[in-house]
Amino acid sequence: MGHILVTNDDGIHANGIRALVEVASEFGKVIVAAPDRPQSAKSNAITIGKPLRMKKVSLFGDLVAGAYAVSGTPVDCVSLAMDQLFTEAPLLCLSGVNHGSNSSINVIYSGTMSAAMQAALAGIESIGFSNVAFDEEVDFTHIKAAMRKIIAMALDKGLPKSKLLNINFPTTEDGSFKGIKFCRQADAQWTQKFVSRTDPHGRKYYWLTGDFLVHDKGTDTDLHALKQGYISVVPVMTDLTAHDDLEFFDAWELEKSKSV
Amino acid sequence: MGHILVTNDDGIHANGIRALVEVASEFGKVIVAAPDRPQSAKSNAITIGKPLRMKKVSLFGDLVAGAYAVSGTPVDCVSLAMDQLFTEAPLLCLSGVNHGSNSSINVIYSGTMSAAMQAALAGIESIGFSNVAFDEEVDFTHIKAAMRKIIAMALDKGLPKSKLLNINFPTTEDGSFKGIKFCRQADAQWTQKFVSRTDPHGRKYYWLTGDFLVHDKGTDTDLHALKQGYISVVPVMTDLTAHDDLEFFDAWELEKSKSV
Repeated sequence: MGHILVTNDDGIHANGIRALVEVASEFGKVIVAAPDRPQSAKSNAITIGKPLRMKKVSLFGDLVAGAYAVSGTPVDCVSLAMDQLFTEAPLLCLSGVNHGSNSSINVIYSGTMSAAMQAALAGIESIGFSNVAFDEEVDFTHIKAAMRKIIAMALDKGLPKSKLLNINFPTTEDGSFKGIKFCRQADAQWTQKFVSRTDPHGRKYYWLTGDFLVHDKGTDTDLHALKQGYISVVPVMTDLTAHDDLEFFDAWELEKSKSV
Repeated sequence: MGHILVTNDDGIHANGIRALVEVASEFGKVIVAAPDRPQSAKSNAITIGKPLRMKKVSLFGDLVAGAYAVSGTPVDCVSLAMDQLFTEAPLLCLSGVNHGSNSSINVIYSGTMSAAMQAALAGIESIGFSNVAFDEEVDFTHIKAAMRKIIAMALDKGLPKSKLLNINFPTTEDGSFKGIKFCRQADAQWTQKFVSRTDPHGRKYYWLTGDFLVHDKGTDTDLHALKQGYISVVPVMTDLTAHDDLEFFDAWELEKSKSV
């Protein structure tokens, strides 16, 4: 059995990572490297200018070959684990199960997905799992069964060229799923609004709130699949080039100019 | 004259943002909202669970209509500014000038680019500017001239559908540029390595170092353009779907299954 790297962004004490470790341990020797505290919405942030700490923990008992709490971001956890804990590359990197959706535009803010992305950039096939429900005490029975099936397929058939999947589990009435849909990321945005308060010294501060605006009416998106009760699977890439936009710049006619 | 939002990730005291403010002020009424301290490599991170502070500063004198130092990430700066400082949407969001390259895979880690991306998601045409040289005391003469030309074109001709450009200035012998190239993001990765030290209490800690590995041999990339002495311009999008990979999943044949 090869090694599997498990990480997340909710922190090593979250219920989601325990559910993932339980399933992952059926497929390989699990090494956990996860943040020592919640690191949600950290995106691809990297800790620079200060060093990291890494502490061995016994949270997962015999389920794992080793588990480490790291003082940094989700991306730091993956980078530090890859450099310090593996003599050969892991078979797979699994991130999550995130408490909350990483569908649609959430993918760019998510620490869970960024951790998986960091492993994918290093050539490791990686999957981020997220549960749309924020509930920390959610029942993981159906999610674990689905993850077992997906991980088995990933190990058997491999992942596509991008090496990275964003998988979200919907909230359904009885907790079960209609099936799996392979989708594109829905076009949506967070409109961030702030509520101001005044501290006892008369100075203002601002609490983040926000509205989620969906622009996409497509039926081939992750949001649509989730709404229908399907597990959504989006293959994710790290080339952000808007290739279709490149020809737009003929209008700029700047390339011909040497005088910049 | 409409309003222009200026931000960065090196912090409001960096020389790069001053150079950008000087140019931007020729095109509109500038509002600066930038981090109160360096926030490099923060990617699309958002501050959650604690409030933000925003302090009016007089750093830029009459060049600007207002300047604010924000206690959060670059994305926080843009969100807070859009919500609290503008009654109508700005004409343009300009981010930078970053001290250091945001070409190639750096785009996913960059706070400079993520700030611009946040504005683009809100429908604002946005440009991130980065100088490949890390040098804090760099001469901005040629960069300012090029930015002047690019901002004029952006206001005149508009940006393509993605509404977001990643622009990098190369280091050249005499500081001048050969011209502008419209490119795709080069395929490369950071392999993060750590150097361990031991503190006076016998506990290990880890300093981040790293190697930049370029996999891409293309001549249509940002890295290639920069190497040749051209300014690189990459249109950037936020749909991370690996569309070409979607058909791969026929091999999984999971969609047909209801038993997940």
